[in-house]
This record gives sequence, C-alpha cells and structure tokens, in this order.
Amino acid sequence: MRYVDFDKTAGYHQLASLKASGTKVDLGSLLSAAQVNQRQVPMAAGLTYSWAAKEVDTPVLESLQALAEEQELIGKYQAILEGEVMNTGEHRKVLHHLLRGQLGKPVIHDGKDIGAFYRQEQERFSAFADAVHAGTLRGSTGKAFTTVVQIGIGGSDLGPRALYLALENWAAAAGKQRLQAKFTSNVDPDDASQVAASVVLEQTIFVLVSKSGTTQETLANELFIKAKLHKAGLDPSKHLVAVTSETSPLARNPAYLDSFYIDDFIGGRYSSTSGVGGVVLSLAFGKEVFQAILAGAHEADTLALESNIYKNAALLDALIGIWERNFQGYPYTAILPYSQALSRFPAHLQQLDMESNGKRVNRNGEPLAYATGPVVFGEPGTNGQHSFYQLLHQGTDVIPLQFVGFIESQRGDDLMVDGSLSQTKLKANLAAQIVAFAKGKADPNGNKVFLGGRPSSLIYGKRLTPEALGALLAHFENKVMFQGLVWNLNSFDQEGVQLGKVLTKKVLAAQGGSSGDPVLDAYSALLGL
Amino acid sequence: MRYVDFDKTAGYHQLASLKASGTKVDLGSLLSAAQVNQRQVPMAAGLTYSWAAKEVDTPVLESLQALAEEQELIGKYQAILEGEVMNTGEHRKVLHHLLRGQLGKPVIHDGKDIGAFYRQEQERFSAFADAVHAGTLRGSTGKAFTTVVQIGIGGSDLGPRALYLALENWAAAAGKQRLQAKFTSNVDPDDASQVAASVVLEQTIFVLVSKSGTTQETLANELFIKAKLHKAGLDPSKHLVAVTSETSPLARNPAYLDSFYIDDFIGGRYSSTSGVGGVVLSLAFGKEVFQAILAGAHEADTLALESNIYKNAALLDALIGIWERNFQGYPYTAILPYSQALSRFPAHLQQLDMESNGKRVNRNGEPLAYATGPVVFGEPGTNGQHSFYQLLHQGTDVIPLQFVGFIESQRGDDLMVDGSLSQTKLKANLAAQIVAFAKGKADPNGNKVFLGGRPSSLIYGKRLTPEALGALLAHFENKVMFQGLVWNLNSFDQEGVQLGKVLTKKVLAAQGGSSGDPVLDAYSALLGL
Repeated sequence: MRYVDFDKTAGYHQLASLKASGTKVDLGSLLSAAQVNQRQVPMAAGLTYSWAAKEVDTPVLESLQALAEEQELIGKYQAILEGEVMNTGEHRKVLHHLLRGQLGKPVIHDGKDIGAFYRQEQERFSAFADAVHAGTLRGSTGKAFTTVVQIGIGGSDLGPRALYLALENWAAAAGKQRLQAKFTSNVDPDDASQVAASVVLEQTIFVLVSKSGTTQETLANELFIKAKLHKAGLDPSKHLVAVTSETSPLARNPAYLDSFYIDDFIGGRYSSTSGVGGVVLSLAFGKEVFQAILAGAHEADTLALESNIYKNAALLDALIGIWERNFQGYPYTAILPYSQALSRFPAHLQQLDMESNGKRVNRNGEPLAYATGPVVFGEPGTNGQHSFYQLLHQGTDVIPLQFVGFIESQRGDDLMVDGSLSQTKLKANLAAQIVAFAKGKADPNGNKVFLGGRPSSLIYGKRLTPEALGALLAHFENKVMFQGLVWNLNSFDQEGVQLGKVLTKKVLAAQGGSSGDPVLDAYSALLGL
Repeated sequence: MRYVDFDKTAGYHQLASLKASGTKVDLGSLLSAAQVNQRQVPMAAGLTYSWAAKEVDTPVLESLQALAEEQELIGKYQAILEGEVMNTGEHRKVLHHLLRGQLGKPVIHDGKDIGAFYRQEQERFSAFADAVHAGTLRGSTGKAFTTVVQIGIGGSDLGPRALYLALENWAAAAGKQRLQAKFTSNVDPDDASQVAASVVLEQTIFVLVSKSGTTQETLANELFIKAKLHKAGLDPSKHLVAVTSETSPLARNPAYLDSFYIDDFIGGRYSSTSGVGGVVLSLAFGKEVFQAILAGAHEADTLALESNIYKNAALLDALIGIWERNFQGYPYTAILPYSQALSRFPAHLQQLDMESNGKRVNRNGEPLAYATGPVVFGEPGTNGQHSFYQLLHQGTDVIPLQFVGFIESQRGDDLMVDGSLSQTKLKANLAAQIVAFAKGKADPNGNKVFLGGRPSSLIYGKRLTPEALGALLAHFENKVMFQGLVWNLNSFDQEGVQLGKVLTKKVLAAQGGSSGDPVLDAYSALLGL
C-alpha cells in the first residue's frame, strides 16, 4: 500500500484542473426529476443516499473514482479491518468495525483474538443488563434500578448520548424503555450536581466510562457522585459499573459492581458501538436494541467495501466532500436532520469529523499544503429554518448541506391540521428546502433574491429504528475514514488535546503561586484562581 | 445619517492596506501579562471583556475607531433607540432595547407611546405569573400549575430556552424555581408528543408564542396539545396563554386564559426580553428574576452608547470581528462558554448572528462585494475540549474563539478532588486553553506541534446571575447590531426564510398530485409524500 499526500496524486491535479477550467455546475439546471431518481445509492438498513443536488458533473465524478483507486481507499479500509497499524501516531490498530462483526481475517494481537474479546465483553454486558432488568441485580437498599447515569466526556458522552436520544421515542412506542438514561460530562460542578439532584440515588446505576481511567473530568465527577451516594447512606460499590481498558485502575476493582473492557484499538469517538455505548444503551433499552444498532452498522461497514463509487454511499459522500473542501473551497458542512430524535447527532458528528480530520500534518507528522477537515455544525429541521437558514440561503458564502429525513415518525402519535399530519409538514419542509437551496429564485427586489447553487445531499429511510441508526452512525464513521485516507492523515489520534491538558496541570499545581508562565498567571488571576 | 457600503468607506481601504502591508500580529509574543491586565473593558452587571488574545495592533485599532466614527455607529444606534425605521425591508422600527428601559426620547408611533405599551404588557404578565404562583389561577381541575411548556419556534424558542437553562441551577440554589419549564418547537410530531407525555397535563400551563399567529409549526403543535388536553378531559382555554401581536388571531381570543402582546418592532431573535421570554421565565422563576435580566440588559445597552472603542465592549467586539471576517478572512466564530448552564446559549447566538447578518445585499437590497455574517457554532467547555478542539488547535484553518467563564459555580455544590474543586479545574482549563491557542508549542515531532496564533476573547464575571445573563445577552445583540451597521445591512429582517415556506405550501397543496415542479415532486416522492 502506498501512502501519498493528496497534492502529490494525479487525482488532485486532475480535479484542480477541472476547477481551474472554470466549469461551473449549475445546480438549478442540473436538478431534474430524472436526476433525483437516478442519483441515489442504497445504504444499509433500508436507508438511501440521494446526491442529486450536489455540484458534480461526469468529469468530476470520473476523477473522483480514479482518485479513490489511486489512493487505494478500499484497500486501505481492508487493511484497517485486518488490523494494520493505522493509528500511526500512537502505533495502534483501528478496530471499531470489528465491534460490529468480522469482515476480514481474524485479528490476532499478542496471541489474542481481538474479535473474540470484543464479543465476549459484549456478552458480559448483555448479561449484566439482563440481570438488572430481571431485578436479580439491585442497588444497595435492595430496590430495583430505574435510572442509569453515564459519567464520561467526549466520545464517552456525545455518541452514546446522541444514540440514546435518537431512540427514546422509538423505545417508548415499542415498549422497550427499560431504564431512563441521563448523562453527566462537564467538570463544571453544576452539571453533576444537577444530575445527582434529579435522580433517585438508591435506584440509580452509574456507568463510569474512561478508557485510560485517568480522565480528569470523569474522575472528578465519579468522586462527586460517590460522595452523594455515601451521604445518602448508600454503598457506591453497589451502584457503579466501569467501562475501561484492562490496564486501567478501574479494571478488576472491587469498588465497582463489574468492569467491562475495551482496548487501545477503539478510539473514543469511534467507541459508541463498544461497551462505551453498549452498557448504557443495553441498560436503557435492552440488549436486543443495542445488537440491532450493531447489525445496522455492520451492514454499512460491509457496503463500504464496494469500490464503485456509485454503489458505495460512504465513499461517494467522502469524495464529494473532498471536491467541496479542496476545490470548491467550502470550509464547513451543516448537518440538518429533519428528526427531533437526532437533536444531538450533529454534536456527535462534529466530534467525529473535526477530531478525526482536523489535522495539518500527514500520517508521518509532515506538514500539509492543502485544507483538511471542515467545520461541522447543525441543528434539527424545522428548527434551523427559523434560525441560521437565513445565512445558508442568502449569506455571502456557500455552505454544503447534509439533510437526513424519515418517512414515518417514531411515536406514530400525530394530528391532522389544515389537511396534513405534522410528519407530512416536516417532510414537505425538507423537500422544499432542498429545492430552494439548489434552485433559488429570481426577484426584482434584491432582498428577495435567492441565488441558489447551495449543494446538498439527503439520507432518507422509512423510520429511525435501531438498525437505521447504526447504519447512519457507521456511514459517517466510514465517510470520515475515507476522507482521512484521501488526505493521507492519521484520523485516529488527537494530539491537539494534549497542550491544554499540560497547561491545565500547571495552573492547578500553581494555585495561589506562580506557574512559571506570567501570561497563564495573568489569566488565572482574572478567573480568581 | 449617511448609509454607506463598507467597501466605499475610507476605513475599509485603510484596513485593507494594513492587511496588504503584511503586518502580522504575532499573538505568542503580543500576549504578555501586562497586555492581559490592560486589554479589558468593563461590561454591565460586573462582567468584563478581555481581548488580550486578539490579533490587533495599534494601527488596526486606530483604524477601527476611525471606522466606527465614519460609519456613525453610535449615531445609528441612537437612531434605533429613538425609533427610526431601521428594518428597511419591512419598514419597521427596531425597539427591543426599549423593552429594557428608555435610552432616548419617548418613541411615539401612531400616537401611541411604545415604551409605555411595553411596560404595561410586562406588568400584565408579571401579575399573571403572581396569580399562578399564589394559586389564585389554576388549571381546569382546580389543581395548581407546576409546569409551564413554551410552544414556539426560532426566536420564540432558542432565546427563552437558552435563558431558562442558564438560570435553572441558579434558581435551584436561590430557592427561586417556581414552575418547571419545558419547550416544544419542531413540527416533528415526536417533539410535541414526547413533551406532552412527560408532563402532568392538568397541572401544566402552555405558553403559545407566535407574533403573527400564523406560524405553521407552532399552530400545529398548539392543536396537537389541545387535542391531548381534550382527551384528558381538560378545558384547553384554562391551560393556554398566548404571546402574540394585537392584530393576530390569537389576540383577545377566549380560547386563551390571557394574551400578552408584542408588536412588529420586536424581531423574533431579539424578543427574549419581551413577553416571548418574559412570560415563561416569570412563570418559572418569578417576575423579579425576569426583571433582573432586563436590568442587566439595560445596563449593557447604556454602555453600548460610548463612542470610545476601549470603553465599549460590544463595539470593540464587533469591530475586531470585522477585522477577522473581512481582512483576516476567517469565515466562522466559535462560542465556548465554560459553564454548563450556557449549554444552549451558542444555539441562540447562532440564530442571533447568522439570521441577522447572513445577508448578501445592503439595506437597500443592492448586492455587496464583501463577506458579511460568519458561521457561528459552539458547545460548552470542557466538553468541547474532548470533541472539536482538535481541529481548533491543529486544523488547517484559524477559527476565532469567544470564551465565557465565571469565577463561581451556580449551585455552590462542589468537591475537592486531587487538591482542587471542580470549579477550579473548570477555570484552570479555560485559562490553559486561551494560552494554548494563542501561543502554541514547538516540538520536534510534527504531530505534536501547535502553531498557536488562534485569537480569542474572554467574557468573565463572578457568577452567572440573572443580571449577568441579561448583560451577556444584550452584549451579543449589540455586537451583531454594530457589525450589521458597519456592513450597511438590514440586520432585522429575514427574507431568506420565505422561499422555503412558499415551496412547502406547494408540496402540501399537491399531496398525491403534482405541485407543478417536477423536481419538487421527485423529492416529495422519495419522502413518501
């Protein structure tokens, strides 16, 4: 396998010359009904990727296909699946796909079958959830657990929280809500204090999630919660369970009901389908629901092996994003799910994308001369329409848009008003926005002109089920992976978080005195430190 | 008053030539302890604006001061205060400042004293909240109200919701929580269904907020809720109150307990300090708390009249933003509050900024040749540190940062872990991040290099109180206003929302048949419409 910086590839120069030739794809005229019906790729779990409203013509698409082959994207994905060390900075394998199923040969590390290890942990926490649901495992006063609180931050919070919120209504309708879930993440003491005050402690189980077992925020919140449990006369060891690595201080520790393990090959932002998401989601909805998420993700992982860009939604989505970022020059992407259930999904994708590909050096640490990961932001529609869509429609810059929508609601509780259901109104707004962004509108009044030419894609499906959610999650993970491979990045480390940690320790060590850095001391003084 | 496009001003050309001369402000060396102590502006309610880590030197600052004078920013602000028609597209005055207090001569419109009208409505809804709290006003079964649900979208949701969440912990600690508040906004039926299922209907009062009384989403959700109340055997007219304009169908309508009024001079995204925010916040926390928010905002409005940029935080913040957007070429700004209470404040600022200044025509509808409003996004710290900060530190682009932090927590419920309180850790992280972003770090390993040069400002104060929250809100409103005036925009309309509404109506009218637009029909078909 050859690892080449993007600007050293023939594909880069071909795309650059297409851009330089000034060919402009006019979305307004491109977008015919035939195009809408044709430009679709089937995804996992019955979802579809519709890319009719993207600014790509045949020469661009052919160049993107050639680029995919030149950068050996599918081959490198297979190398990831088979355990090659793709997290080059930390010299680690990258094995989150293996959490969902085996797609290559077994991955053996130090004589251990990693897939078997992941399956074993999954079985262990499934049995744990069963015991809680059966009432054989209870809190220290003998009462059944009714609430689960996840204590974690970053990947131990955003992904699991987004997935939980995405399925809360589905579970209510399906009779699958077993425990209510809450989350605390911030070191801001108001966060843990508020969550602790909002639950019945003797009926609450806390899931402490930290791979290293040393995350400052998470450990502070753990002790905060333990103090609350003590104060309430409860035994913390009967209310806490840990998700961590086998080498962490939280492993095999009698302070917890049990510990479930991940390893260094599961990055935080890729950990939702491990015990990091699995313990809380299995407790909240039952193990079958979590397994359905895994099944949807595994199907998406399988489809991502296809080398033809017209048949691989994650690959095509990734490559169109490369065209938009590096040649159209758009530095951001908006995620716009027309589904209230996905209210925090954009925040998860923000981490997934920006932490993976927000890098200015290649996988060997050498500086790059081209733009990499964009800024990702978003809110659910229709809410966003009444907020920042003004800029998306009539601002001075073009922002590529990623819509998501479903034919049916989750709860099926709806009302006909003015001749249409709310779900129908929601979908009508979605269809209307795609067309409005692409085609715009002329008007003699300059203030009412819409230039159009705002590209978007749409992922749609019948209903947001656990399988569809898993497919959606894996789609974006694989998209981000393919983009990182085009850019020749290591998408799996996060050195950018280190400097802040070092300086924070300096400030904390200096409390009252000097850290040795007068600027740090001056800011500390402003904040009363 | 002269209204001139930004690129026709002397200030624009002066700033452009400063940029072209290649003077680069090196943040790493600029940032001394002396600079940190000096570059501060007092704000309202005891807050301070610290701008030591901004990339501006004396020539740039002098040009910005001259630009403020050339564009008559303070004079135009005074014109707004005194009722000039500044929403040129809709031919309306812009009077949200008047909700907080009188700063110019009385504003008379059609013989009516608008300030007196605003005060009267505020007194009416204060008395209404008092009656609910006293138990003299009860639901249709005679039980006291314990919950208030706001039904509104956009400005009728984001601002009030952000303010409510910002004060929930403060109120818990101060014993000021009177009713619990919830919000429903999306036309997605799962949103209203979930909220309705989560409250005790007979003890819930609903606040229906729509200035026009015709907002599609809000009216659908109102009927949805009314159907639930009917089904529960309750009388909806004893559970609903409206906030609207006097000409709307919701005005003086016996279907509501009462209606409180705003007028066309209060834009949605500027309406948090009107009854749009006032009814729900007064019900939730008591009228005194809402009045304290107004007092903080009014103090900020007063300080924004100062013409010296070194004494006017909103003006300085606005002008530095202009430098960053138009000359440094940064197309986005991140809002990073180190306060979990401000978790939804970035979403409110996203609307405030992007809907106000996401415009490509000037106040007369003529196209502009320069960039206007940036993309605004953000999440609370420390959460963001474990998410998208990777890109902020080590991505290929520079993103200006707006930090917010407080010396004390709101609940005062904290624990010493490893020698420091959680609040201390929170602040140590904040100080560390500012310095890390500005100064960076050299390293022989390219992957561990931090270039630094990431500019930021910091708003800090003792504690997030109602007064401080009002000051914070008004600071950003006034900042956005000043930027719109520099760019010669109408920051107070939102024509960009119209096209989507028109096309949505087409889709809904066509259900099953054709809308007359084959592309719209094709997308409708994908979504099962």
